[in-house]
Amino acid sequence: SIIHTDHNGLTQEEFANLKEKTIKAKDLSYSPYSNFRVGATILTTCGEYISGANVENASYGACICAERTAITRAVVSGFKSFRAIGISTDLKDKIGSPCGICRQVIREFGLNVSIYLFNVDGSKYFRVQLKDILPLSFGPSDLGLPEHDG
Amino acid sequence: SIIHTDHNGLTQEEFANLKEKTIKAKDLSYSPYSNFRVGATILTTCGEYISGANVENASYGACICAERTAITRAVVSGFKSFRAIGISTDLKDKIGSPCGICRQVIREFGLNVSIYLFNVDGSKYFRVQLKDILPLSFGPSDLGLPEHDG
Amino acid sequence: SIIHTDHNGLTQEEFANLKEKTIKAKDLSYSPYSNFRVGATILTTCGEYISGANVENASYGACICAERTAITRAVVSGFKSFRAIGISTDLKDKIGSPCGICRQVIREFGLNVSIYLFNVDGSKYFRVQLKDILPLSFGPSDLGLPEHDG
Amino acid sequence: SIIHTDHNGLTQEEFANLKEKTIKAKDLSYSPYSNFRVGATILTTCGEYISGANVENASYGACICAERTAITRAVVSGFKSFRAIGISTDLKDKIGSPCGICRQVIREFGLNVSIYLFNVDGSKYFRVQLKDILPLSFGPSDLGLPEHDG
Ligand SMILES: [Zn+2]
Ligand SMILES: [Zn+2]
Ligand SMILES: [Zn+2]
Ligand SMILES: [Zn+2]
Repeated sequence: SIIHTDHNGLTQEEFANLKEKTIKAKDLSYSPYSNFRVGATILTTCGEYISGANVENASYGACICAERTAITRAVVSGFKSFRAIGISTDLKDKIGSPCGICRQVIREFGLNVSIYLFNVDGSKYFRVQLKDILPLSFGPSDLGLPEHDG
Repeated sequence: SIIHTDHNGLTQEEFANLKEKTIKAKDLSYSPYSNFRVGATILTTCGEYISGANVENASYGACICAERTAITRAVVSGFKSFRAIGISTDLKDKIGSPCGICRQVIREFGLNVSIYLFNVDGSKYFRVQLKDILPLSFGPSDLGLPEHDG
Repeated sequence: SIIHTDHNGLTQEEFANLKEKTIKAKDLSYSPYSNFRVGATILTTCGEYISGANVENASYGACICAERTAITRAVVSGFKSFRAIGISTDLKDKIGSPCGICRQVIREFGLNVSIYLFNVDGSKYFRVQLKDILPLSFGPSDLGLPEHDG
Repeated sequence: SIIHTDHNGLTQEEFANLKEKTIKAKDLSYSPYSNFRVGATILTTCGEYISGANVENASYGACICAERTAITRAVVSGFKSFRAIGISTDLKDKIGSPCGICRQVIREFGLNVSIYLFNVDGSKYFRVQLKDILPLSFGPSDLGLPEHDG
C-alpha cells in the first residue's frame, strides 16, 4: 500500500508541531466561495515551519490551494527543499487529499516529500510520499533541467 | 506495474485512429514560449474522436495543456464520458506524461480512463489508467457531488 | 466611455448569430460547483462561429471559463484571429464581464477584439474592446515575440 | 491618462522602502523556464511590507506570478487590505505590467490599490490604479458576496 501511518523520521516533537500548525493554518483560509477551509504546513529541510491556506477568487480558476500558498511562501522565503507537508480540511468523515495541481507544484521541488494528511482536528492521519501519488510525473528533467533532489 | 502495453478493449482500428489523430494533433499546438508541442486525442464512449493541443500564453500561468483543451472541447461538444486519451510530445528519447493539472481535469469525469502515452511518432507507447497515476484523488465526492462513473 | 452599443462592423445577421449562439452555449456549461453558467461564442475573421462554456472542477483552481474553452477550441480548430466574442451569464440584474484570466488569454491573439456582453437572454448588451478592458497589457512582445495583430 | 508619476499618499520613506524591497524581491524568483525574474512587494494598510517573486513549474500552467505569491503570502499572514503593490522585472527597455490573472487576484481584495511599476533597477517607474487597468471587472459582488473595499 502507498498509505503509511508512521512518522518517517520526524521526531515526536516535529510531528506534533506539524500537526498543530497544519490544523491552525485553516484559520488563515480565505474561502468565501467554497466555504471549504484547507490548511497546509511545510517542514523544510532546514527545520522551518511555513504555513499556508487556500485563497479563493470570484473567478474560480484563480483560486490557489493551501498547499500552493505554502509552497510559494516557502520558496520566496528562501526554501526549496522540503521534508514534509501537513494538510487538513474541515471534512468530517474523511481525510482530504491534495489536488493534481498541488501535487504538480510540490513535485517541482522533489519527489521525496512526505505528505501527512490529517483529519479535521488532527486526531487521525496517514502519510503518503509524493512520488506514490503522482507516479510517472512530468517535471524539470522532461524539459532538460536538473531535478531538485537528484 | 501500472504500465500496460495492451489496447484494453480498443479495436485495432480504434487504436490506430487514436494514435494517428494524437500524433497529428501536435500540428495544432500554439507553443511559441516552450517550443514544446503536445497533442492529445480523446475517444468518447460514443465513439467520437476529439483532439486538442497546448495553447500557451505570455503569462505562463495562463497556458492550457493539450489534454485540457481536448477535454474542454469534448465537454462543450456534449461529451462527458471518455474511454481513452492519447497523448504525444516531441520528446525524442522518452515518452511524456500528463501533468498534475491535467490529471485533475481528466479525473473530474471519471477515474476509469485509459491514457495512451505515445512517443514522438507513435512507434512506441504504453498505457496507464488515470486512477493509477492519480491515486487518492480529490474529486466531486469530496465536495458532496456524485461521481461521474460511480 | 469604453462602453459601446453599436455592432462595430458586424452585419445584422452576424450580430444575431453571435447572440443566439452565445445564449445557447450556456447549455453546454459544466458548473456543478458554482451553479453559475457562462456561455461564449467567438466569431473568427474567417467567419466561423465557435462556442464554449465553463468547465468546472472539484479543485476550483482547475476551472476553465467559457471564454477560454471557446478560445482554445478555436485555436485547436485552426483559428487564431478573432473579430468578436459574445459572452452571457445567467445573472438576472446585471451583465457579466470576463475575468482577468480570460482577458489575458484572449489578449494573446490580439488586442483589437470586440467583446459583446449579453444579459441573460440577449435582450440587452453592450460592447467593449479588449484593449480597453486590459490596458497596459502584458503580452508576447514583452517576451520578445511578435504580436498577432501588429 | 491612467498613468501617474506621483506617490499617491505614500511618504518618501514608504515609497523608498517599496521600491527597494520590490527590486530585491527578484532575487527570490524561481524561474528556470522563462529566465524572466519578477519581484513584487505589497504595502498593507497596516504598514507591513510583504514580498513575492514568480515561482515557475515544468507544467507552465502551474506557474505562479510574483504578484500572486505576494498576495497569497499577505493573506495567509493575516492581511487582506492593501495600499500599494510594487512590481519589477528584468526587462531592460520597458516597464513590465501585471498579467490578467494577477489583476484578477489583486482585485478580489479591492479595486483601490496603487500599483507601482518599476523598471529593472527602480530608476524609473509609473503608478496605475487597479481599477483603471481592470475596468468592468468581475468580482465578489457578481456572485452575491460583499466587496472588500465597499
Ligand atoms: Zn490543490
Ligand atoms: Zn497538463
Ligand atoms: Zn474567465
Ligand atoms: Zn501575473
